[in-house]
Amino acid sequence: MSNLKVNIIIEALQKVLPAGRESVALHEPCFSGNEWTYLKECLDSGWVSSVGRYVDRFEGMLAEYTGVKRAVAVVNGTAGLHMCLKLVGVKGGDEVLMPALTFVATANAVVYCNAIPHFADSEERTLGIDPDKLWHYLHDIAEMRSEGCFNKKTGRRIKAVVPMHTFGHPVDLDTLVELCRQYKLELVEDAAESIGSFYKGRHTGSFGKVSALSFNGNKTITTGGGGAILTNDEELGKLAKHLTTTARIPHEWAIEHDAIGYNYRLPNINAALGCAQLEQLPGFLERKRNLAENYRKTFEGIDGVHFFTEPHFAKSNYWLNALVLEEDFADHRDELLEMTNKLGIMTRPAWTLMHKLTMFGNCPKMDLSVAESLGRRRLVNIPSSPVLGGSYA
Amino acid sequence: MSNLKVNIIIEALQKVLPAGRESVALHEPCFSGNEWTYLKECLDSGWVSSVGRYVDRFEGMLAEYTGVKRAVAVVNGTAGLHMCLKLVGVKGGDEVLMPALTFVATANAVVYCNAIPHFADSEERTLGIDPDKLWHYLHDIAEMRSEGCFNKKTGRRIKAVVPMHTFGHPVDLDTLVELCRQYKLELVEDAAESIGSFYKGRHTGSFGKVSALSFNGNKTITTGGGGAILTNDEELGKLAKHLTTTARIPHEWAIEHDAIGYNYRLPNINAALGCAQLEQLPGFLERKRNLAENYRKTFEGIDGVHFFTEPHFAKSNYWLNALVLEEDFADHRDELLEMTNKLGIMTRPAWTLMHKLTMFGNCPKMDLSVAESLGRRRLVNIPSSPVLGGSYA
Repeated sequence: MSNLKVNIIIEALQKVLPAGRESVALHEPCFSGNEWTYLKECLDSGWVSSVGRYVDRFEGMLAEYTGVKRAVAVVNGTAGLHMCLKLVGVKGGDEVLMPALTFVATANAVVYCNAIPHFADSEERTLGIDPDKLWHYLHDIAEMRSEGCFNKKTGRRIKAVVPMHTFGHPVDLDTLVELCRQYKLELVEDAAESIGSFYKGRHTGSFGKVSALSFNGNKTITTGGGGAILTNDEELGKLAKHLTTTARIPHEWAIEHDAIGYNYRLPNINAALGCAQLEQLPGFLERKRNLAENYRKTFEGIDGVHFFTEPHFAKSNYWLNALVLEEDFADHRDELLEMTNKLGIMTRPAWTLMHKLTMFGNCPKMDLSVAESLGRRRLVNIPSSPVLGGSYA
Repeated sequence: MSNLKVNIIIEALQKVLPAGRESVALHEPCFSGNEWTYLKECLDSGWVSSVGRYVDRFEGMLAEYTGVKRAVAVVNGTAGLHMCLKLVGVKGGDEVLMPALTFVATANAVVYCNAIPHFADSEERTLGIDPDKLWHYLHDIAEMRSEGCFNKKTGRRIKAVVPMHTFGHPVDLDTLVELCRQYKLELVEDAAESIGSFYKGRHTGSFGKVSALSFNGNKTITTGGGGAILTNDEELGKLAKHLTTTARIPHEWAIEHDAIGYNYRLPNINAALGCAQLEQLPGFLERKRNLAENYRKTFEGIDGVHFFTEPHFAKSNYWLNALVLEEDFADHRDELLEMTNKLGIMTRPAWTLMHKLTMFGNCPKMDLSVAESLGRRRLVNIPSSPVLGGSYA
């Protein structure tokens, strides 16, 4: 019975995916644009490192595409998140609200600030943080003081909320923005997965006071390793650039620094790759949406599972496509994972939930029943490369 | 009178440096090997990011060249140092001995561990930490307890010593190793500047329990941005790899982590550049030593200044060549800097000493008279690119 269903799902996947390939990756990059030309220009000019025109150009292109005032290129998404939390004033001993269902970088970045992750539940319609449930929770545990929002149970200040746009699907940002206003919390978007994803027409990462993008090799566009900080606050943007480039005071020759700084700058050679990739983003997105639409149609009539589609208020990048198993089929998730991977169709479950990891086991958390159900039992990511959604010119 | 001396120095520089160039950089990279081929291989294979054969190959080549058991490629030298300190067990509230005369990354890395930099003096013969002076200092301030070495004045544990091989010139490692043994301090070499530099025939970075290299764009070889951790302790090497790659537990599909990890891995595309550069290192070193020899001879008879040459126990990479001004000429350092930079000959003073930076002003320190004299008044770096030391095939 179960095997039958697993087989039906595998057949559906095979219908969408190209035949004759030995294996189909979860997400592979595509270098069909100016990557070559730009890399060569870097080598020929000798500018491969921390200074160079591609860093400026990449930052300009990112700001324009996402509609923010300032984008600062950094060495990866984790570094970007770390800086975002510093920039909004997260201090040692603060608590930071974030989803339990996320990649570990979100929680690690909080710990780099000597702060404490505080885990919130997700909702079925976005796979991201549930703002209404969080609102009720804060009503119970939060106490407003002149210094901000405090957790009555732990006595610690709650400084920020970090929603993550899971697999590229935007969370309900309007409600979260309102919640942050009411509780005097800083909004930092973990937009690591959501370049090319829009909430009510505005790009994800433009709602938070600062936000972080990622261009890791498995992302929609890649710089090898890389990320960016987005902000509409020009002063914070300047500070982001300063702190990520060792906080050096500009001078023709003297080498002086005025703060604890970080070596988080993106090398020029990686930025060159980023420029070429960003030029191709619209094409990548089109193909990824084609692929998602193929999945959606193919899984439409299949019992026990549905293909996750963007929330009504969003236009998603469909970074990682996801199947959601019905509760009564969830026990067969591992069977599905095992069989697909054996067949060379790369699939994977959601990340282990943050509160289940040893190092975060004692962190504060609300009821996490939806995250538990989705993350531990019901989510399966399936191949999502742009190349699977149409041929390249 | 002074102007005359400044002019003589400038004439000497012009004698060594190529004529007719609009400007001569302090250190520019050279890409005359397999850079192209390897980068192309990355793009063609799609492996540009965190996984790929160049990372493994670069690590293997580095371990072989430096003679250590394990090299772990990381995103830059600062990240490498941060991990080194974690790996030897530096904890919040510990003190870490390090030179006042260094680049700010050495001190920042200590602060990332919530530890406190404790500044030590340098010696004229190496420009690095003075082990004899440090020995006398520890004799006065250190108290040995079962938990290790404690600072009697501050009550804090002193956990490690981080010598930095200034401009590529090795410090007196034998004496430091002995000092660390006596005081139960961990030795971590900041070898960011010293790839290709040897102390009594052994590569710098192979004496510390763990050590950090840098491949920033201004270094002897470059990966755009990059660095490495070196160690002869295989267990620590494994742990270094684990912690710098998000501490993920290996599994075919499940995503689980067992410690606070870091996203410090070097992307494959940067490692590819590193492989090509490392292949050319012997040639770069030869040309850099030619250039240094030219400088040495040219400055031999000139009053008020000498060209810094490697300590007797060392074979240096001469990463950044340095002039040392005599005390009675030191007041004219800024004039020399100004005139050379105006003429397009890039020169610069040493870094602002660490204890003079706002954020480290209250850190503990010993008498720093030699570092003060050298760093604040007497050191001037002069052009050092390998291309200046001979023509390329």
